[in-house]
Amino acid sequence: MTSPVGLHRVLEPAGVLPQAAWRLDARAEVGADEVRIRVERLNLDAASFRQLAQKHGGDGAAVRAEVLEIISTRGKMHNPVTGSGGMLIGTVEEVGPDSPLPVRPGDRVATLVSLTLTPLAVHDGLAGWDGLGEQVPCAGHAILFARSIVAVLPDDLPAELALAVLDVCGAPALTARVVGGHVVAGAGTGALRRGVTVAVLGGAGKSGSLALAAASRAGAARTVGVVPVAAERDRLVAAGLADEVVLADARDPVALSAAVREALGGPADVTVVCVDVPGCEHGAVLATADGGTVIFFSMATSFAAAALGAEGLAADVTMLVGNGYVPGHAELALSLVREVTGVRRLFEARLRAD
Amino acid sequence: MTSPVGLHRVLEPAGVLPQAAWRLDARAEVGADEVRIRVERLNLDAASFRQLAQKHGGDGAAVRAEVLEIISTRGKMHNPVTGSGGMLIGTVEEVGPDSPLPVRPGDRVATLVSLTLTPLAVHDGLAGWDGLGEQVPCAGHAILFARSIVAVLPDDLPAELALAVLDVCGAPALTARVVGGHVVAGAGTGALRRGVTVAVLGGAGKSGSLALAAASRAGAARTVGVVPVAAERDRLVAAGLADEVVLADARDPVALSAAVREALGGPADVTVVCVDVPGCEHGAVLATADGGTVIFFSMATSFAAAALGAEGLAADVTMLVGNGYVPGHAELALSLVREVTGVRRLFEARLRAD
Repeated sequence: MTSPVGLHRVLEPAGVLPQAAWRLDARAEVGADEVRIRVERLNLDAASFRQLAQKHGGDGAAVRAEVLEIISTRGKMHNPVTGSGGMLIGTVEEVGPDSPLPVRPGDRVATLVSLTLTPLAVHDGLAGWDGLGEQVPCAGHAILFARSIVAVLPDDLPAELALAVLDVCGAPALTARVVGGHVVAGAGTGALRRGVTVAVLGGAGKSGSLALAAASRAGAARTVGVVPVAAERDRLVAAGLADEVVLADARDPVALSAAVREALGGPADVTVVCVDVPGCEHGAVLATADGGTVIFFSMATSFAAAALGAEGLAADVTMLVGNGYVPGHAELALSLVREVTGVRRLFEARLRAD
Repeated sequence: MTSPVGLHRVLEPAGVLPQAAWRLDARAEVGADEVRIRVERLNLDAASFRQLAQKHGGDGAAVRAEVLEIISTRGKMHNPVTGSGGMLIGTVEEVGPDSPLPVRPGDRVATLVSLTLTPLAVHDGLAGWDGLGEQVPCAGHAILFARSIVAVLPDDLPAELALAVLDVCGAPALTARVVGGHVVAGAGTGALRRGVTVAVLGGAGKSGSLALAAASRAGAARTVGVVPVAAERDRLVAAGLADEVVLADARDPVALSAAVREALGGPADVTVVCVDVPGCEHGAVLATADGGTVIFFSMATSFAAAALGAEGLAADVTMLVGNGYVPGHAELALSLVREVTGVRRLFEARLRAD
């Protein structure tokens, strides 16, 4: 019997989840609910690649040798120092008869779960990689479990653009769900006659711009994008994704709250935190109406600062840990980048700048 | 004009929230929406007292002098090393005409917001305190803002018991709200015919036992309390607060999830984390049904572990940062300890053991 979360692939230590395991079984044979991918490219996590490059002083051959060593030892690309992995692109080779994943052999796909929990074997010694960048051409195979997440790469979008969108696709999906819930609750009670208002901190970024577009589509009556510098303000205004765009430091609770209240005519019903700097918790809470919701997508969020901050402000707000997985998240994000010109322009400009 | 969050009491640096301020204005005159308390006792935060006691090698007079110095310098009891404060007990002395707080002069009250944001002045040099314990007899005054949280101490419960309950009163209130939401959603759709199931990790503790009692009162069909050792299992079974009590290590996702599923006949609709050890995020997620909710009350929760764990498990669960403030939280918790014999017995046993 195979486990939907891959417990049967854990070799040591026994009984832990694949992400916590030291070593996975990467054999090519698929179980009844597994999928095998013919790997084309690994995208190493930026922190992982940086650590390896620094350790070997920029010696690409040494970096390549260590990545090969990690994968052959651990059965996955799980950097033991940084604890991080990355994602991969490839083609579906075999789908077990009981797999619930929506893929067929021949589909070109990207995995949306981390390489730290994905069984992986390399067949070509990474011969096509110089060890000098995060993009690793790779012939090999990887295994997906029943509860893995995978997206079919669309034919109509460049792969780079699709990957950049898929990387942050949890944000628009959860934003849409939460805003939609407030719209329904407001319609039911008649309490929210002015409509649902949404503030997105970091509105000009990748997850922020998608969140703004998702909020509008989910029925937000008024949105504000908060950005830290004038250049981002100009870009977000040009993209036309928010009703208002304001400059404010999200780490300054008083200034942030004042800016949001002025832009929306009051505190936000939903505040979405997409800024990857520490210290935005109190401002997000203070900018949000009683009965409202704060969604934290920033990995720089401090759990304790959020919990104690809301208590200290006697703020009756619901605070959500931004779960990167919501069913249908990849499709929603891809449809936004296809159909909302402003989102697509922001992403394309970012890709050109990278 | 006074600010409901106390901005007008901030002396330096200008423009920050009272908790972030270096120095507050602790003058006794109340603004229109403020309340003045005649202080009777400070309860120093345990981490703060420990730091001071260690610094001064157990010299009580030196500890007392430093606490006095902190309060006179900062206008609040905000330990600059630990960043923590505590709470206070006293009697309401004056209530500004516009204060929304539900107190009258003469009420004996406990503050439920941290001393780190409460203007405080000491009148007696802390003469009644030997500097050797966290309980500080104190003559002085403190100021509450419009958005402060304060509870009137009940006549029918010992003050120590009431304080222990008030200290964790956010947990049962949020648990009741979330469980009630699932009950309503299930009744609406008819999807949850088996009723709402609830797992409480750390069910024999203070917040855990209150959360179990609150879940039952909010309509949970079946509850399980998870505890780490046999002695706690026996206490929780004797208290009769959960339909099932199981022994499991909440840091072991596979074992925890198996134990919860066996006890409830499937994953939990609502999982409440009340164990103050790191590493419980993945287990809580894995023990929770798709569409379910995890409430994290433990300050040891890692935001990143929760966010990445749910994504790695493709788990469509809502994850809440346990906000210590929910309107009516003090009243709900006090009513549970009054009316649920098992909760009261657990609290009394804990107070005797301390």
